[in-house]
Amino acid sequence: LDIPYYAVIFSAHRTPGDNGYNAMAVRMEAIAATMPGYLGLESARNEDGFGITVSYWKTEDDIANWKQQVDHLEAQRQGHINWYKDFDVRVAKVERAYNMKKN
Amino acid sequence: LDIPYYAVIFSAHRTPGDNGYNAMAVRMEAIAATMPGYLGLESARNEDGFGITVSYWKTEDDIANWKQQVDHLEAQRQGHINWYKDFDVRVAKVERAYNMKKN
Repeated sequence: LDIPYYAVIFSAHRTPGDNGYNAMAVRMEAIAATMPGYLGLESARNEDGFGITVSYWKTEDDIANWKQQVDHLEAQRQGHINWYKDFDVRVAKVERAYNMKKN
Repeated sequence: LDIPYYAVIFSAHRTPGDNGYNAMAVRMEAIAATMPGYLGLESARNEDGFGITVSYWKTEDDIANWKQQVDHLEAQRQGHINWYKDFDVRVAKVERAYNMKKN
């Protein structure tokens, strides 16, 4: 990935139960992957319901565009009402990156 | 937190077994919390061993300083050898943030 790019860090505590969350999450990831500027997504969740999802985008405009996508707007609405006790969203410019991978 | 601040996004696949990892992780979080510019840390891990840890810092210098802390250097060395199959590290400038919290 060419530096700089952008990360949306979404960290949240889930409410108990699924309530349609997992189906939505799979669907949102599939739709996000079709959006302009999408570079990838990583997600991890603890058994206690705390999770972090980071999505990566070429530009801030790509993030704004995804935030307004119609299915995503509905997911955000449901998230607010049903799925999350709390969440933090941070938009950040990735300025440096390195990695390690064992063969 | 005052915008802008910095995030270190560490995403990694663990090797099987603990091998001293959990004790180190607790210790590193305790030491990080004493470092200049430390603003907080969030961590989540899937059952399959994929995890994301995001630490937050006031400045890039604070991140460089933490990266060179002596116990952290040893943890990085062990991580490379023993704990991780792969990892990505991204240093990002947090430019916007918002949150939701239910009462």
